[in-house]
Amino acid sequence: MINGYNLIGFEERSEGDIKLKAFSPVVKDDLPGEFTAATLSEISSATMKATRAFAVYSKKTAEEKAVFLEAIGEEILALGDELIQRAMLESGLPEARLTGERGRTIGQLKMFADLLREGSWVEAVIDTALPDRKPFPRADLRKMLVPIGPVLVFGASNFPFAFSTAGGDTASALAAGNPVIVKAHEGHLGTNELMGNAIKHAAKKTGMPDGIFSFVISSDVDTIQRLVKDEAIKAIGFTGSYKAGTAIFKIATTERKIPIPVFAEMSSINPVLVLPKKLETEGTSVATNLAGSIVLGTGQFCTNPGLIFLLESDAAENFIGLLAGSLANAAPAPMLNKAVCSNYYNSREILQQQNGVRILVSVDNSSKDYKGSAVLLETDALSFIKNENLQAEVFGPSSLVVKCKDKNQLRQALEVLHGQLTGTVIGLNEDIAAFSNCIEVLHSKVGRLLYNGVPTGVEVCHAMVHGGPFPATTNAGSTSVGADAIKRFARPVCLQDCPPEFLPAALKDDNDLKIMRKINGLYTRDSVSS
Amino acid sequence: MINGYNLIGFEERSEGDIKLKAFSPVVKDDLPGEFTAATLSEISSATMKATRAFAVYSKKTAEEKAVFLEAIGEEILALGDELIQRAMLESGLPEARLTGERGRTIGQLKMFADLLREGSWVEAVIDTALPDRKPFPRADLRKMLVPIGPVLVFGASNFPFAFSTAGGDTASALAAGNPVIVKAHEGHLGTNELMGNAIKHAAKKTGMPDGIFSFVISSDVDTIQRLVKDEAIKAIGFTGSYKAGTAIFKIATTERKIPIPVFAEMSSINPVLVLPKKLETEGTSVATNLAGSIVLGTGQFCTNPGLIFLLESDAAENFIGLLAGSLANAAPAPMLNKAVCSNYYNSREILQQQNGVRILVSVDNSSKDYKGSAVLLETDALSFIKNENLQAEVFGPSSLVVKCKDKNQLRQALEVLHGQLTGTVIGLNEDIAAFSNCIEVLHSKVGRLLYNGVPTGVEVCHAMVHGGPFPATTNAGSTSVGADAIKRFARPVCLQDCPPEFLPAALKDDNDLKIMRKINGLYTRDSVSS
Repeated sequence: MINGYNLIGFEERSEGDIKLKAFSPVVKDDLPGEFTAATLSEISSATMKATRAFAVYSKKTAEEKAVFLEAIGEEILALGDELIQRAMLESGLPEARLTGERGRTIGQLKMFADLLREGSWVEAVIDTALPDRKPFPRADLRKMLVPIGPVLVFGASNFPFAFSTAGGDTASALAAGNPVIVKAHEGHLGTNELMGNAIKHAAKKTGMPDGIFSFVISSDVDTIQRLVKDEAIKAIGFTGSYKAGTAIFKIATTERKIPIPVFAEMSSINPVLVLPKKLETEGTSVATNLAGSIVLGTGQFCTNPGLIFLLESDAAENFIGLLAGSLANAAPAPMLNKAVCSNYYNSREILQQQNGVRILVSVDNSSKDYKGSAVLLETDALSFIKNENLQAEVFGPSSLVVKCKDKNQLRQALEVLHGQLTGTVIGLNEDIAAFSNCIEVLHSKVGRLLYNGVPTGVEVCHAMVHGGPFPATTNAGSTSVGADAIKRFARPVCLQDCPPEFLPAALKDDNDLKIMRKINGLYTRDSVSS
Repeated sequence: MINGYNLIGFEERSEGDIKLKAFSPVVKDDLPGEFTAATLSEISSATMKATRAFAVYSKKTAEEKAVFLEAIGEEILALGDELIQRAMLESGLPEARLTGERGRTIGQLKMFADLLREGSWVEAVIDTALPDRKPFPRADLRKMLVPIGPVLVFGASNFPFAFSTAGGDTASALAAGNPVIVKAHEGHLGTNELMGNAIKHAAKKTGMPDGIFSFVISSDVDTIQRLVKDEAIKAIGFTGSYKAGTAIFKIATTERKIPIPVFAEMSSINPVLVLPKKLETEGTSVATNLAGSIVLGTGQFCTNPGLIFLLESDAAENFIGLLAGSLANAAPAPMLNKAVCSNYYNSREILQQQNGVRILVSVDNSSKDYKGSAVLLETDALSFIKNENLQAEVFGPSSLVVKCKDKNQLRQALEVLHGQLTGTVIGLNEDIAAFSNCIEVLHSKVGRLLYNGVPTGVEVCHAMVHGGPFPATTNAGSTSVGADAIKRFARPVCLQDCPPEFLPAALKDDNDLKIMRKINGLYTRDSVSS
């Protein structure tokens, strides 16, 4: 049952006059029911509640927070088929994909619960006092990460579960000890409500404070700006377009009295480097795999391979032919929503019209059906180097092949690349050795460099970096997927000469938490020796 | 011998027409000789050289970088008395202080050398492949921190060695694997040249590339902005005023095509909370220690205690009297330079004139002699809460006592505090227990919370946090002092399915570097087991 309210802490509120509808790209019409945009007073209640909740929640033990995160997972599962069906209607994504994404979302919550129980993520560092040191004694200094306060989350349309209401930003912010306010994504308002309720139920069941979680609905730019500028908000997690991400980044860093960090994951075209020996020996399978990655999920992944670099050769022409053949045969598939679909066709049209760009495959525009059809373009390295427009993200099943005359030109083309979430090297070991200086350039542009695979598919694990230099993100030092995502929403505090009885558990002499700590420069799980 | 050039990599260049003089607050006049402001072409050479040097330097081993850092320390020591004498003339700081600061600066370089040799700072994380996992196999994923590229450093006047040309920002940026360009501080141009030369000699002796280090001289805002906007620059370290720091932050985040991180350490007034039982029992010694901290170095420390909170009582009046007595007897002492001195008297004058502020001690203005004299002011909590101007940094030997009626009012006053580098709690254990909710608020505002000490004195160690919420810094997640300062200038990159022979040493199965790594979620110095 979907009611269209805002969730302000534990309260369901819908006082506003502005109503939004949920559009379905599947039924090609608005779904029944309406959603009430949040009033400024509701938004302010959410931020005030979050501030109050922070004082309570930040003192919960790791175990209490872990139980809460796991309870969210259980409540999501308990939503059963209603969640999957609603998300299918709102996103056009197929059932199997959404069932898998639900598993990933629950697994992600479980990973953070495990991380909290293990406990070492707080990076406890202890330098013990040296009272007899000359010329000055050293004080006792102990530091650890602490939560920063209420986090505002803007989710993405392409992962209505894993990168939205109860997705990675929310999970990592809650895990770090912070309340969360989600700006509900307009592309899946019903899904958002179901997910938000799951979080609310989990919070109530596990004794979490009112205000630990809220979601607000709005399509009004001024209202959203007010939220971004609200003094209670201490950090922002964002997944979405370059335009929205950079606008929020700018407001948060320059239009607030106190600037806050923005972890925006935005735009990436994920270059793939196909090297000559591999092309000669395994061109067919590479073309098949790459074509599959380009059209996977109708190309609606931030890691979709939108750029393919190779050196001119007969093998390259053969490979391009195979790739084009696969893409030409790919059936147009549903896109997430109206806006994504029209943006796709607009941006691919702009790209097709750039100087030096030739169309290899351009399956008919299916925007009337809200479907995305594949496109494959090619250009030469000089055109690519000259024209930044060839690096514009085309969010959908599209890719641009850049043909280079030689290694030198390839390197020059890689050097003008913007920052990316991923870069892919497809090559035999002898290729990798021969093109090491090109790969080095690619390495400097990306958050994840992968070999002989496809960039789509982002593992939730400890070693993941789903991040990268601007414009892939606004903070190349962070990742939005994987265990270290939690560190975005924490900051270090050093306690100097704190009386032992007032030290937090992670910093006491006795290491009751059994966490890994750095004591006088050495990593250990031992207690501080006296 | 000081020549007044810019150091552009290994080249000494002075092509410009604009000449600057080095003023001495000791001789109260310009020192002989002149310094040539850098031309745009010289600046551009520096950034181009830095980019080229990065490609070479970032591949140096930890041992090679460690040897370079230690060689800088040796070269600084080899400057001998010329360095100390020049810095005394340019900064007005006494010999003993500068000799100590030189030791700290060399010790800091040594600490980073040790950190590189130990090696675990790269945060190597490995998740091994799970080829048989269902429904999908897991790839092999390995991540570590890598250097980000050329770093621009703006040093501070108050630490001409430890926070300037060869100070903490430069040391940590070089340690992380990045070239450095220093914007020479106008307050100690000669000291800068000597230090820059020491770095150059160390670089040449240890085989580092031309461009690993440059310094440029400029007092022109447009020129400095051009440098901040230069595409080659990948991060900025800054120590100085709120005005300059926020201006650089704004340019770097919104006026560049590619925004870069700015680690600016700016403004802090370092509140001290003196609790009642301690005041009753040890008021005299607390007053003596605090007075000493207020006038230490003529109050020219970013951790100078500029704000003292206490509850109204007879003991408090007695304490304030003692503090006032000490400060009234403190002799005016030399300040760093003209600008620091005139800013001090201007800002203390503005503070004195605020509503509700009473002057307890205001030793005569000695600005003609470039000396700073002490001032002690008092106000009530309500005036403090109402008027943000009472939180303006007065950089010099000044402090403001805020008298609160009760615990509740104290908490309210702490709640309006801006972000700070430090907060100090002076109390018996029973005080600390009784005021836990006030201390919690103070904790939320600071990077370092210290007990029963004075905030001046920042230890260079693993557990230090010299940072804090805005406006103390522009990045509360970082520290500019201590081992973790290196992490500001690095970013994580994940390698997926990288063939073993192309993995960097830190990520290979065999842990030849013997570093601490996280493998499949567990911390270990073991190799990856097959």
